[in-house]
Amino acid sequence: MSDKLVMAVNAGSSSLKYKLYRLEGLEVVCGGLVDRIGHEDGIFKLTYNGETTKEVLPIMDHHKGVDLILNALTSKGIVKDKNDIVAIGHRVVQGGKYFSKSALFDADTEKKIADLTPLDPLHAPAHLMGYHAFKEAIPGAVAIAVFDTAYHQTMEEEDYLFPIPYELSEKYDCRRYGAHGTSHRYLAEKALATYLKDKKDTKIITCHLGSGSSLAAIHNGKVVATSMGLTPLGGVMMGTRSGDLDPSVSYYLAEQMHLSNQEVYDLLNKKSGFLGVTGLSNDTRDVEGGYLKGDKRCIIASHLFARRVADYIGQYFVRLGGVDLIIFSAGIGENSAFYRKLVLDRVKDALHIVIDEKKNEEAFGGKEELISAPESAVKVAVIPTDEEKMIASDAVKAYEGKL
Amino acid sequence: MSDKLVMAVNAGSSSLKYKLYRLEGLEVVCGGLVDRIGHEDGIFKLTYNGETTKEVLPIMDHHKGVDLILNALTSKGIVKDKNDIVAIGHRVVQGGKYFSKSALFDADTEKKIADLTPLDPLHAPAHLMGYHAFKEAIPGAVAIAVFDTAYHQTMEEEDYLFPIPYELSEKYDCRRYGAHGTSHRYLAEKALATYLKDKKDTKIITCHLGSGSSLAAIHNGKVVATSMGLTPLGGVMMGTRSGDLDPSVSYYLAEQMHLSNQEVYDLLNKKSGFLGVTGLSNDTRDVEGGYLKGDKRCIIASHLFARRVADYIGQYFVRLGGVDLIIFSAGIGENSAFYRKLVLDRVKDALHIVIDEKKNEEAFGGKEELISAPESAVKVAVIPTDEEKMIASDAVKAYEGKL
Repeated sequence: MSDKLVMAVNAGSSSLKYKLYRLEGLEVVCGGLVDRIGHEDGIFKLTYNGETTKEVLPIMDHHKGVDLILNALTSKGIVKDKNDIVAIGHRVVQGGKYFSKSALFDADTEKKIADLTPLDPLHAPAHLMGYHAFKEAIPGAVAIAVFDTAYHQTMEEEDYLFPIPYELSEKYDCRRYGAHGTSHRYLAEKALATYLKDKKDTKIITCHLGSGSSLAAIHNGKVVATSMGLTPLGGVMMGTRSGDLDPSVSYYLAEQMHLSNQEVYDLLNKKSGFLGVTGLSNDTRDVEGGYLKGDKRCIIASHLFARRVADYIGQYFVRLGGVDLIIFSAGIGENSAFYRKLVLDRVKDALHIVIDEKKNEEAFGGKEELISAPESAVKVAVIPTDEEKMIASDAVKAYEGKL
Repeated sequence: MSDKLVMAVNAGSSSLKYKLYRLEGLEVVCGGLVDRIGHEDGIFKLTYNGETTKEVLPIMDHHKGVDLILNALTSKGIVKDKNDIVAIGHRVVQGGKYFSKSALFDADTEKKIADLTPLDPLHAPAHLMGYHAFKEAIPGAVAIAVFDTAYHQTMEEEDYLFPIPYELSEKYDCRRYGAHGTSHRYLAEKALATYLKDKKDTKIITCHLGSGSSLAAIHNGKVVATSMGLTPLGGVMMGTRSGDLDPSVSYYLAEQMHLSNQEVYDLLNKKSGFLGVTGLSNDTRDVEGGYLKGDKRCIIASHLFARRVADYIGQYFVRLGGVDLIIFSAGIGENSAFYRKLVLDRVKDALHIVIDEKKNEEAFGGKEELISAPESAVKVAVIPTDEEKMIASDAVKAYEGKL
């Protein structure tokens, strides 16, 4: 067996998530997190062989974070030589109009990501810091950028344009880009291979429901519509985000409460969604608990969320001209029989869906399961997503010159 | 035959639309418009027996406008005595949470409309001016307020709440109210009597598509969902309005263009929609013309509009658990076979709709027509709307003590 390894990296402004795979077969070797970068009490975590170690120490920049990771890997004997890591895939949130698939992380890619900073001021600089830190540490590794938006670039204009002045759409590249593309791609590829392998014309709705949520309509493996918009604030209601709104809501609240543009934006990004409606938590496990105890606002929030997800399923059913398979994934989608049922109860009459309640209850904690009954007109599956594996897989392809 | 008459009034800040009916049978007697109220070159129009007269003269307030109307009616012998007008129905845009049906225009109603001014600063004061001007001129007439929002008050919380902090929804009454309710009600009542009279469980989607557009999902005669939100800016793309958006669009444009809250709001209200995307016109007749000549932006705008309407039809199909009848109405819906076809082409595969193309082409200029073929799984009808008649009809009911 080759010793060659591949790493999936997710660099944020103060964190670095990493997962290491064997190049052959993409078996997970280890993974972890560098957190609180820029702080004296930085955190370094590594999980290997089912055991997690944690250190608290000063981690002043991303370079230090990468050194910590690579030193730990060699000193613990997990990796013989850091140069065995031959390919690194970097998650990049915003690929704008430039990237419709993963790309070699070269000077041109770097420049384009930098140019896209206005569309994602939070992540773009951090992605570049992560890339540079790894490039300096392992100059020989093939590096690629894997964009959250890339998979959605097959949308047509009527699905990605906003009805604002056309000049502004063009001048400011203000359009729907979507998000969670790597997850939607992973789910669609898995579903096509597993549940629809003999079908010619395939219509899938993927529901990536977590603290951030988005849906996509996928026709023959290509995205035709997705719910997130210019940024991950759009689409359905989420943990702390409102999703799409009548724009007069922002205007009215700003006028009534004397808020600035930034304050309204923060309100809709950080204080809305499940957190805002319940006043309790952005975590649906807490909200589900409140619901079951009869808490009025937890009940409203849960119904509101389920309604918005059901709205998009209806929209995408029409967009696709029918649907073969609905997939639930991510934190809520993989683990909550309760929320899946709330959503499915709202779509089953129109779409003639029959759920196997027992299978729905059993789909939990990373288990893949077909939860529709055989007589259901539409298949419904729970598929655990794995964005890191998709990133690693693209990195392997790049290493093999097949990207 | 009784000489009693009833009037439907739509008072705006600088205009007064009126239509006069015989109380018995609601036959139209005449109608017209007072425009440019507050100006030296005010306009007074009256249409009677197919002939329209127009005068330009100073009309400094609504009282003067009402005097002009009533004097013309008596001097031309259309009405013997202004007191023959025994009931007056006033259109009111925003009824907030207070009104779920038309109400006698008394002190309590007046106070509530005044209290709702923050939700509709443009229209609320104008409605009250119109009411007072008529009350002074014909004190004996029964006056009622007919609200654009009332018919939508049967929605459930999950369909009318926004996923913003619950305290703000409550404190500022910030929720979905919808609009065009009088039109949606008229269409649903007509459809139930005409196309679904023997059906028990009825599911209707009404598409009121004009320079302002909204859709409603109507279950057994009651609205369960509608597309307009807090104000008429929400929902689908319109003549100059964007409809619902990812809220980061407002934020991003404000930041990039250094716009105030008010400027962004005006941009989305007055410079977006068909006007913004085409750069040509807010009038779909012009845009359709451009489309047929191959103008790229007219094509995009038309597809974008059709897509957003189709999205809502999909949403409401799921919301209702199926659909028996889809109704097209208002300026675009009644007159444009072209836009009806663009919309229906986007929903027909999923909903198994078959259109009678010839009937679709023929439905124009106030003609009612069933445009679906007999084998269609869903009926599709064009029904001309008539909000004034609905308002007059409610006024008659009030006069007869049956409101």
